[in-house]
Amino acid sequence: MTGRSWWGWGTTDRALNDDECVAAAAGLSGLPARPRPVPAVADLELPLPRIAVPESVPVSTAPAVRASHTYGKAYRDVVRALSGDLRAAPDAVALPRTEAQIVALLDWAASAGVAVVPYGGGSSVVGGVEYRGEGPWISLDVAGLDRVLEVDRVSRAARIQGGALGPVLEDQLRPHGLTLRHFPQSFEFSTLGGWLATRAGGHYATLHTHIDDLVESMRVVTPIGVSASWRLPGSGAGPSPDRMFLGSEGTLGVITEAWMRLQDRPRFKASASVRFRDMTPAMAAVRAISQAALYPANCRLLDPAEAALSGASSSGECVLVLGVESAAHPVDDRLAELLDLARDCGGTVAPSSDTGRDAAADAWRSTFLRMPYVRDGLARMSAIVETFETACTWDRAEELYATVRAGVGAAVEEVTGAPGMVTCRFTHVYPDGPAPYFTVIAAGRPGAELAMWDDVKTAASEVLGRLGATITHHHAVGRDHRPGYDRQRPEPFAVALRAAKSALDPAGVLNPGVLIDPAS
Amino acid sequence: MTGRSWWGWGTTDRALNDDECVAAAAGLSGLPARPRPVPAVADLELPLPRIAVPESVPVSTAPAVRASHTYGKAYRDVVRALSGDLRAAPDAVALPRTEAQIVALLDWAASAGVAVVPYGGGSSVVGGVEYRGEGPWISLDVAGLDRVLEVDRVSRAARIQGGALGPVLEDQLRPHGLTLRHFPQSFEFSTLGGWLATRAGGHYATLHTHIDDLVESMRVVTPIGVSASWRLPGSGAGPSPDRMFLGSEGTLGVITEAWMRLQDRPRFKASASVRFRDMTPAMAAVRAISQAALYPANCRLLDPAEAALSGASSSGECVLVLGVESAAHPVDDRLAELLDLARDCGGTVAPSSDTGRDAAADAWRSTFLRMPYVRDGLARMSAIVETFETACTWDRAEELYATVRAGVGAAVEEVTGAPGMVTCRFTHVYPDGPAPYFTVIAAGRPGAELAMWDDVKTAASEVLGRLGATITHHHAVGRDHRPGYDRQRPEPFAVALRAAKSALDPAGVLNPGVLIDPAS
Repeated sequence: MTGRSWWGWGTTDRALNDDECVAAAAGLSGLPARPRPVPAVADLELPLPRIAVPESVPVSTAPAVRASHTYGKAYRDVVRALSGDLRAAPDAVALPRTEAQIVALLDWAASAGVAVVPYGGGSSVVGGVEYRGEGPWISLDVAGLDRVLEVDRVSRAARIQGGALGPVLEDQLRPHGLTLRHFPQSFEFSTLGGWLATRAGGHYATLHTHIDDLVESMRVVTPIGVSASWRLPGSGAGPSPDRMFLGSEGTLGVITEAWMRLQDRPRFKASASVRFRDMTPAMAAVRAISQAALYPANCRLLDPAEAALSGASSSGECVLVLGVESAAHPVDDRLAELLDLARDCGGTVAPSSDTGRDAAADAWRSTFLRMPYVRDGLARMSAIVETFETACTWDRAEELYATVRAGVGAAVEEVTGAPGMVTCRFTHVYPDGPAPYFTVIAAGRPGAELAMWDDVKTAASEVLGRLGATITHHHAVGRDHRPGYDRQRPEPFAVALRAAKSALDPAGVLNPGVLIDPAS
Repeated sequence: MTGRSWWGWGTTDRALNDDECVAAAAGLSGLPARPRPVPAVADLELPLPRIAVPESVPVSTAPAVRASHTYGKAYRDVVRALSGDLRAAPDAVALPRTEAQIVALLDWAASAGVAVVPYGGGSSVVGGVEYRGEGPWISLDVAGLDRVLEVDRVSRAARIQGGALGPVLEDQLRPHGLTLRHFPQSFEFSTLGGWLATRAGGHYATLHTHIDDLVESMRVVTPIGVSASWRLPGSGAGPSPDRMFLGSEGTLGVITEAWMRLQDRPRFKASASVRFRDMTPAMAAVRAISQAALYPANCRLLDPAEAALSGASSSGECVLVLGVESAAHPVDDRLAELLDLARDCGGTVAPSSDTGRDAAADAWRSTFLRMPYVRDGLARMSAIVETFETACTWDRAEELYATVRAGVGAAVEEVTGAPGMVTCRFTHVYPDGPAPYFTVIAAGRPGAELAMWDDVKTAASEVLGRLGATITHHHAVGRDHRPGYDRQRPEPFAVALRAAKSALDPAGVLNPGVLIDPAS
């Protein structure tokens, strides 16, 4: 993609300029007056490539390509890139155009003992696409495999290559009147294969929340051969093969294709927002909604701080944004039922506008898409920005919300010497619990950002672990969430996963350090 | 459970008497005039137990107990039991009351090299609870672990022991106003642990069709330790541990507990039936319904032969039975939308009765619950009865229906020398395809039933395999579906599963022969 930032989120033309960086950080005290400059690619010091990949596989060793594949897009990635620290750059970036080239690369890598880190859109925020070992490594960028190969209109499914970015695959589905309708925040800059490998959370706030639910079959290149599951709407034949590769984060194989379940484009939509005094009645409403089998497409609860941050409301209230959609039937009745449930819990429904659009929802959505760019601008100002998300059952949701806010707030104050901002929204909800998403913003010190971020991250992970909440609802594990994941994962399952890993990747070259380590 | 049949389905008081057996077989020619007698337990010749289980684990070696744990409830099991062939009886039946006793049993079995076959309700129709090896073996009956241990009303979930039969767990949930609402045909005679181990299909015809979808967390005793996943409404942390044990059919561990997602008891229900000229418009209607996101709880399509067999219709038409339910909202509008879709495809909606019940649906349901007893009666008459089920995408559904009917019909005629009956219903449907369920009934020859059944089964499996349809949508794999499963399962996944199995069950004592064989 032209115009992609090598160091930060998205495209360069949408990055904050210096003045915008200063403005974004206006609420934080003690920061530098001007943002840290972005290094020019020509000035970067990249280590010399230590290996030569066989000519059968297209590769690039251009500095800009290696630099842009050194890290993902976590806060700590941006800070390291901005500081010009590219010591860990890949020795080469493989750019295959065919599955056969991926097979050839893995064969070579296994025999040469070279680590291979699969790279989709590079949007990982958990250290999933970098390498922390000592030896040479290849970043395997699959963006060249970006086609919709086949559409089955009758079964409403399509065979799509793993390297297709969100807009690229939607453009190819549109002429068929179909859509995958998987819209993570990273939609523009992440791929189908990446979504599958990380069990990404998408558009739907209820029911089909994860990409997992949209998979009909998968094709995965493992070091010992290609795994191709059958196209089946449902099967009870043993443990699901697809469910082993879903969430495997490039440690078991490279996802080259999948048959995905599609949707007709929605013809009917309705949305509304509801305000609540505080999170207690708001959570009660969201719980009632999640347990009523009405399946709103959108059901985002913003706590007062998140509502203020996003411009959805500055009144100190919570805002619940509800949206319903259907390709087949009008949805006004369903929205009315949802709003009844919200009112029963003490919510105040915002009057609908003449345009049928909801102002709070629009404000929130615009901030949502802009936020990663703001995060980068704040990073240039030496602010600390962290987002993390989790899920827990409803019986623990209020305690989790309070404990995380208090615990992470205290950690921020201890680490930075001043109070920070901790905001929360529910991104997805289930009959048995919500998926709360937290944003932390605080003033950092130039040069100390990474250490401060690490301390905040550790505090957040420990709070979640103590509460029995997952380390990740949809951001994946990567390298940054390993301590929390190692705690969450049952030990016999770890033993089984390690055995499966060793069997599929005997040389241990696939994304070492992610999810699980080989037997020692 | 008192009154359970040791040789056939369910309870002895509901078995067909001799005259009923004759009547059931009235349409088949060339059969014996009277049914084969049922052997008395006292007359059975059981091999002497070859092992002594440590006293820490409660066991039974009573002939009736060993006889009733020799087989599951497949047709071939019933025929073998009726013939008095109990050479393969377990050496002992373990009857633990606690998880610790299961741990002790597996420890002992691993050290002694004795095979252990987990047994829930014993309703397997795929050879999942027998043993086909030479050495001694234990049937591990978990029915003593049958309690609902904890109910979380707020999150609508309960912690339930794996040995609880359907009615036993529903009785314990009822005082809380909650229900698991998982009603497979075997509901009375199968357990939660069995449903989980086999990925059972249940009440809901759409959406949450398999028990998999209702699982919040699981506790599994493996030979190397207890695996306990966290209670989470959703997680994206690596491949799902629960999804590895779901469908593992007792080969990786024994499921002792699970937190299950529950439903409020439905307050609103509506049902109707629709007739179609033939399967082409009927399938079109079911496809439209499955893709409209209306999620009927019941959506059973009976082909003309199935409609006749069940008493739902003798007019030579197809019958589609639709049902909608909700705990929160009236459902009449939703049923009306479903019926509109059916009418659009040429269906004729049956007039609703004064009672609000649908006569075709009632007739079908009553036959559905009676059918396993009729099957046993037919087996006593030397008829061949087989049921198998599958799933495929919509683009292949019509071809599959025609090909299976023709292929299996021809096989029946070749094997038995006369045409048989092949009927079909769709038990569950998905946006991308249906799950067709076939019933085969034909006249057999006394003494040759098993060989004839095997030939029909093989023919059916080969037809499914050629069409790329799954060997099982919800009956599981066991030992009988191994050839089809071995074909369906991607080879790299087989390698990974074998490695996981070896890691969790190093002595290879858990349900040997099911799903996968150890590395040779």
